[in-house]
Amino acid sequence: MTLDTRTETKALKVALLGCGVVGSQVARLLTEQADDLTARVGAPLELAGVAVRRPARHPDIPAHLITTDAAALVAREDIDLVVEVIGGIEPTRTLLLSALQSGKSVVSANKALLAEDGATLHDAATKAGVDLYYEAAVAGAIPLLRPLRESLAGDRITRVMGIVNGTTNFILSRMDATGAGFDEALAEATALGYAEADPTADVDGYDAAAKAAILAGLAFHTKVTTSDVYREGIGEVTAADMASARAMDCTIKLLAICEHSASDGGKGSVSVRVHPAMIPRSHPLAGVGDAFNAVFVEAEAAGSLMFYGRGAGGAPTASAVLGDLVAVARNRVSGSRGAGQSAYAELPVQQMGDVATRYHVALDVNDQPGVLASVAGAFADQGVSIQTVRQEGRGDAATLVLVTHSAADAALAKTVERLTEMPFIRRAASVMRVEGMSSD
Amino acid sequence: MTLDTRTETKALKVALLGCGVVGSQVARLLTEQADDLTARVGAPLELAGVAVRRPARHPDIPAHLITTDAAALVAREDIDLVVEVIGGIEPTRTLLLSALQSGKSVVSANKALLAEDGATLHDAATKAGVDLYYEAAVAGAIPLLRPLRESLAGDRITRVMGIVNGTTNFILSRMDATGAGFDEALAEATALGYAEADPTADVDGYDAAAKAAILAGLAFHTKVTTSDVYREGIGEVTAADMASARAMDCTIKLLAICEHSASDGGKGSVSVRVHPAMIPRSHPLAGVGDAFNAVFVEAEAAGSLMFYGRGAGGAPTASAVLGDLVAVARNRVSGSRGAGQSAYAELPVQQMGDVATRYHVALDVNDQPGVLASVAGAFADQGVSIQTVRQEGRGDAATLVLVTHSAADAALAKTVERLTEMPFIRRAASVMRVEGMSSD
Repeated sequence: MTLDTRTETKALKVALLGCGVVGSQVARLLTEQADDLTARVGAPLELAGVAVRRPARHPDIPAHLITTDAAALVAREDIDLVVEVIGGIEPTRTLLLSALQSGKSVVSANKALLAEDGATLHDAATKAGVDLYYEAAVAGAIPLLRPLRESLAGDRITRVMGIVNGTTNFILSRMDATGAGFDEALAEATALGYAEADPTADVDGYDAAAKAAILAGLAFHTKVTTSDVYREGIGEVTAADMASARAMDCTIKLLAICEHSASDGGKGSVSVRVHPAMIPRSHPLAGVGDAFNAVFVEAEAAGSLMFYGRGAGGAPTASAVLGDLVAVARNRVSGSRGAGQSAYAELPVQQMGDVATRYHVALDVNDQPGVLASVAGAFADQGVSIQTVRQEGRGDAATLVLVTHSAADAALAKTVERLTEMPFIRRAASVMRVEGMSSD
Repeated sequence: MTLDTRTETKALKVALLGCGVVGSQVARLLTEQADDLTARVGAPLELAGVAVRRPARHPDIPAHLITTDAAALVAREDIDLVVEVIGGIEPTRTLLLSALQSGKSVVSANKALLAEDGATLHDAATKAGVDLYYEAAVAGAIPLLRPLRESLAGDRITRVMGIVNGTTNFILSRMDATGAGFDEALAEATALGYAEADPTADVDGYDAAAKAAILAGLAFHTKVTTSDVYREGIGEVTAADMASARAMDCTIKLLAICEHSASDGGKGSVSVRVHPAMIPRSHPLAGVGDAFNAVFVEAEAAGSLMFYGRGAGGAPTASAVLGDLVAVARNRVSGSRGAGQSAYAELPVQQMGDVATRYHVALDVNDQPGVLASVAGAFADQGVSIQTVRQEGRGDAATLVLVTHSAADAALAKTVERLTEMPFIRRAASVMRVEGMSSD
């Protein structure tokens, strides 16, 4: 085993856009691991400029590298590679398009931008014959996008289901472990630094939805954007829901689910959704605690695969950025490009109402004759088949817990709506989708 | 998102060497997924020849593609890519060297050959400017080698610990679940098709050792061959060992462990070993049951990662082969090469006696004064520190269970040897290394 014979010594110049939690770790690793990186790339990687908003905040970066003019840094003719860890849609999109159009390869950790308008960036990269990599945009340090794009390129992925947001996983794990309500668990997450001051992007599922769009596009070789993703956050998950899950030997996770259904005989369609769901404790995703991420992938030939690791944090995310940087730098040295994003499939995206899901429904009902018949009738009216039912009496009241077989989500939602209108039903104590449970 | 602009229509011709369990699946997928593969590669992949030993056994392969002359097939000038699923060292090595030297890229699933003499093959690939990929050689369908080689190329991997042999994992899982002894569990594995008629390669750890050598080489960018790997199989694991593990809230797994220790301040050294070990039930690897594989990776920046999936079987292994085939074909179309194997680090490999391990030791002893003092003294004599000790009396006898802190394996082995010579020690009921346990 010898080093690549095309090794050359001219350094590749790297522009770093943004120097916060992730960017500062990227800068550190570029310096500390310079020798290893040179050996792996076949040429040195030189940090040639760092664009920041407030120069005084970065004493660790040599002053002559710092600039507040990101556009001028990207336009510099000597820059070969651009690493973007600013985030947001604009001005980042303009900066990256300018970089790609001027022949620079780009490594980005920007899930929002990739999910919103990845197509424009991919087109620019293809046109210029350069690379656009973004492993860090989904599930932080976990090597996930590259396996989907490359390792499984000879297989047909049918399903991707994952925990891709650490903040919500921390909150739900605490609710499960302690019986706390959502507000209490969120307060704990905030105090420990797992949730931001404004937790909306995490708690309401926006962050997971952007990642789901990216995963679906890669897995199914088609175009999916944020607006295609059905989204529900965890703000409505109650301690009662979690207790209901425990009674079923389940827990509740916020899942990003991407499915390709080929049932219509043609090329099929995809569905992409983010919502809390009950999963059995025996499912590999149920054991993923704290702020960890994990993604379950099902492929026709490969079967079930799971990828697990840290989904956020400066160093883990920087590891993913550096891995991409080595790859695009190697391609630069050898004058080639890596596997691009292909979107040849052009699959339609299903409406959430048409997606097949399963519901767990717990109802507080009056304990009187005919209740079960009426409830069962409401499901039957919508063509929904019931898998299990359990009734527990408590004096003049009872709790009725039903789990359905899979049916169109709209039919399930409509059934629940009808049920809550019935006079003998006091309230729906818990309504939650169910995933990962065998349908025997 | 559009298709790669360098798309061309000239087909790439694929020679398939071997058409058994994996090869027949590769041939099937090449045909069934032809359209998808063409879109992903940018050119059609054409199965141009299949080398087999007994042509009559392959009715599904068009007769004009079949040959018994593998060397002639490899030598054909129109062949672009060679897929090898024959296995074994020779004549496979000669065939692959000939393929590489004549400018063909190679995809192999041959762990034995890669672990034995990967360097020769890598050198030939580098010299010819072609690709040598072998994702399927380790952990079947699980995308593992590519993440190690590429995704983590900007990080420092410190440890790889995995379950990489499905047969032994099935046997140990059965012993754990049913209390069966090794022979009984092996018989069940054989009956169910999880173990071959001659199970030596699996049971004695040869298969896992070859995979460990490949993993260590990739993870630490250094040269490691099968002969560098310390190896113990599971034939000596008893029902008593498993009961001892259960009492510690542990289970026993056959682990492949690759470590880079940089403690000497210099570039450090590596250790590579395969042996059964107790791991806590709370460890992610403990829950990996049946014939599944899983590999835990620790890297400085990325932290802990885990990869999980099917480690064997025709279709899963074929999925990995096809993923590699798409990658080398894409490189062919774009006139480039993928990331090669780098072995620049040239790290020394530690002797097993010098590797730091921890032992669990259960001793049946006479219940008489001074026993604990003598036992503790035997550990102290070798400089081994004890973490926990538990004594259970049973009439005139007692069981003494000790778990050590980490120490040189030779010191631990010597301690056990001394203990068994002591007159009041009736027998060592169970001696087993411990992994994945916190060392508080």
